[in-house]
Amino acid sequence: LKGNKSVDPIITLLTDFGESDPYTGAMKGVILSICPKARIIDLSHNIQKHNIREGALYLRSVAKYFPKNTIHLVVVDPGVGSSRKPLIIQSRNYFFVGPDNGVLSLAALEDGVPKIVEISNTAYFLKPVSSTFHGRDIFAPIAAHLAVNRSIEKFGSEIGKWVQLEIPKVKIDGNKIYGEIIHIDRFGNVITNIPQEIFQRLQKSAIKFIQIQINQFDSKIKLCTSYDQGGLGEILVIFGSSNLLEIAKNQDSAAAALNVQLNDKILVELVGN
Amino acid sequence: LKGNKSVDPIITLLTDFGESDPYTGAMKGVILSICPKARIIDLSHNIQKHNIREGALYLRSVAKYFPKNTIHLVVVDPGVGSSRKPLIIQSRNYFFVGPDNGVLSLAALEDGVPKIVEISNTAYFLKPVSSTFHGRDIFAPIAAHLAVNRSIEKFGSEIGKWVQLEIPKVKIDGNKIYGEIIHIDRFGNVITNIPQEIFQRLQKSAIKFIQIQINQFDSKIKLCTSYDQGGLGEILVIFGSSNLLEIAKNQDSAAAALNVQLNDKILVELVGN
Amino acid sequence: LKGNKSVDPIITLLTDFGESDPYTGAMKGVILSICPKARIIDLSHNIQKHNIREGALYLRSVAKYFPKNTIHLVVVDPGVGSSRKPLIIQSRNYFFVGPDNGVLSLAALEDGVPKIVEISNTAYFLKPVSSTFHGRDIFAPIAAHLAVNRSIEKFGSEIGKWVQLEIPKVKIDGNKIYGEIIHIDRFGNVITNIPQEIFQRLQKSAIKFIQIQINQFDSKIKLCTSYDQGGLGEILVIFGSSNLLEIAKNQDSAAAALNVQLNDKILVELVGN
Repeated sequence: LKGNKSVDPIITLLTDFGESDPYTGAMKGVILSICPKARIIDLSHNIQKHNIREGALYLRSVAKYFPKNTIHLVVVDPGVGSSRKPLIIQSRNYFFVGPDNGVLSLAALEDGVPKIVEISNTAYFLKPVSSTFHGRDIFAPIAAHLAVNRSIEKFGSEIGKWVQLEIPKVKIDGNKIYGEIIHIDRFGNVITNIPQEIFQRLQKSAIKFIQIQINQFDSKIKLCTSYDQGGLGEILVIFGSSNLLEIAKNQDSAAAALNVQLNDKILVELVGN
Repeated sequence: LKGNKSVDPIITLLTDFGESDPYTGAMKGVILSICPKARIIDLSHNIQKHNIREGALYLRSVAKYFPKNTIHLVVVDPGVGSSRKPLIIQSRNYFFVGPDNGVLSLAALEDGVPKIVEISNTAYFLKPVSSTFHGRDIFAPIAAHLAVNRSIEKFGSEIGKWVQLEIPKVKIDGNKIYGEIIHIDRFGNVITNIPQEIFQRLQKSAIKFIQIQINQFDSKIKLCTSYDQGGLGEILVIFGSSNLLEIAKNQDSAAAALNVQLNDKILVELVGN
Repeated sequence: LKGNKSVDPIITLLTDFGESDPYTGAMKGVILSICPKARIIDLSHNIQKHNIREGALYLRSVAKYFPKNTIHLVVVDPGVGSSRKPLIIQSRNYFFVGPDNGVLSLAALEDGVPKIVEISNTAYFLKPVSSTFHGRDIFAPIAAHLAVNRSIEKFGSEIGKWVQLEIPKVKIDGNKIYGEIIHIDRFGNVITNIPQEIFQRLQKSAIKFIQIQINQFDSKIKLCTSYDQGGLGEILVIFGSSNLLEIAKNQDSAAAALNVQLNDKILVELVGN
């Protein structure tokens, strides 16, 4: 069923514009004026303002669930109006439209075989092009024209160099894993950058407990496979829905309990059972 | 016009996921990958986290306005990954998909003749099924397959026992009505569980004033039929849009003025004119 | 491509209902029950409660980007249930549905040739009509029936008098321009009511700096054409995406830095280079 051409094109929107200003509304209008059949899907407009890494991680965790040929339009663009390039990326399954600041890079690289086009054909822009709102004047019209045509060549030339986001890498030293907190969700779940596959590689037999050290907290914790394996309010660790190690508290906020902030360092030690 | 089969299927989304995390975005992608024609309608993602009752009351007040055959997908799921069952409910006009914790029960019972199916056919799940995000791996794909097929039999077997939410009942003692605050809206309107029909039953003649006792507040208040019948900033009572007794303050917050919280008790006395 | 009749009708939603209450969900259901093919586009539901001017300014800055025949449904309605009239406005390109309190007036007048109809044909209302939620019982069904019919005559009679919002006018005295802050966005950009055309009219040669006086702040500031022309954290002025003078701080909040509130007065002086 994926990418059926008879289905109206899907454009997802991911921005740091919030939900009170007229910016996303204007973008939706521009898209529908160019491609009236486009189906606009709001992902989130609450990326922390100017936070490219948060936008890139959000996009990487979500883009892959969409049908083939979905156009992912992303505007987290602190450099709007500067010399940073506007991009279209065509990867194995998707199109990505947004600024060349790394926000598209994690998702595009994960999808694979990215072909990068620098948008330069001003014939497709909304004019006059403002210097403060390329979301409306460049990215939205390009995404909409792409939804009509599904071909990227006419919008500009392919380039070789683009901004690829560096994300903090996990370090492994024997039984010790050094990671970082990359997201804290609405429930207070603390999500690390430590993937489940590292555990699968390191462990000899099934592990039931691991030692977690983060800020003042240093304790042996139960590795669970569901939140309710912890008692109500018990701190536990679990591999979450993106297969990343997550510290949780059953029906409560682990982030508040452990006073954890985004970007905090974490040390995980495999201590056996 | 209701439930026209030639119209693309409608799936509403109601969750406690908030609007910053990637959870709702992933669910939308899963739905569209299975049923590209599905029309996804956001109800709210701001149900207080883990608050099953708030979700159930929201759904009951909104579900009935949708066309026949609408699929209402609800994820307020503190027991995700535990033994709580995943459900499809087919009632007189609608389909409901979500966890068996009562969040679907008020709306399904109001719509009537609910047929309850425990989802067990894993062929329709997104695999591997995580233990922390059944919204993406079970409920979204089931809702999308339901949008394609409109038949519930293939997803599991009908069951007799399911969780039906208890909501606080109004008590009547002569002219006294004992109720509770079940919602406070953005405007500070204080919504009780006292339905208008009780008044219609109790009153001999049209009532103009009622005695309201809530926390420290104890006063005779005008029963109005529109907010502006109260002077600017005057406390008034009114039957709101769900036919429930509501305490309001014209163009201001009654909740703030009376220091009312969710679940506070209220005593209403019919004192005549 | 604009206004293609074969394309499903577009209804935009702009309200002050917030995103936690069941009000917008009910309106969406009512719309889809009457016009199952309607495509509902959320603009914003976070207009400050009862703030007619904010709603009117939002609508004016966004409505024009939508395709011809779009129906803009707006509910910022502090006078709900009172004698204020419910309106349909047909302007050159659009339909507007909402209360007669000025919230529709700026956008309708900008689009031009507005024809104003007072909604009076109760046959199209959702019954019983509540006195607190005309969004659901009058405006949503009227917008949906309009999406089906695209003719306004049957809903009521044309009227001559309607509420047109007064917005603060800019005053010019020699090289001095007296204006006001009409919006502060999520990024802390401070948007004035001073249009770029005034500068184009007043200036003899290209201006590089202007004197800004607002509250305690009184300084000569660089006039930029993109945010990054200011150093990181530098205060700058720029003509924003609506061609209005805007005070910004590169990658930071100008509103916080200058302690500016909505409605604050501003004095701008053209001081040359």
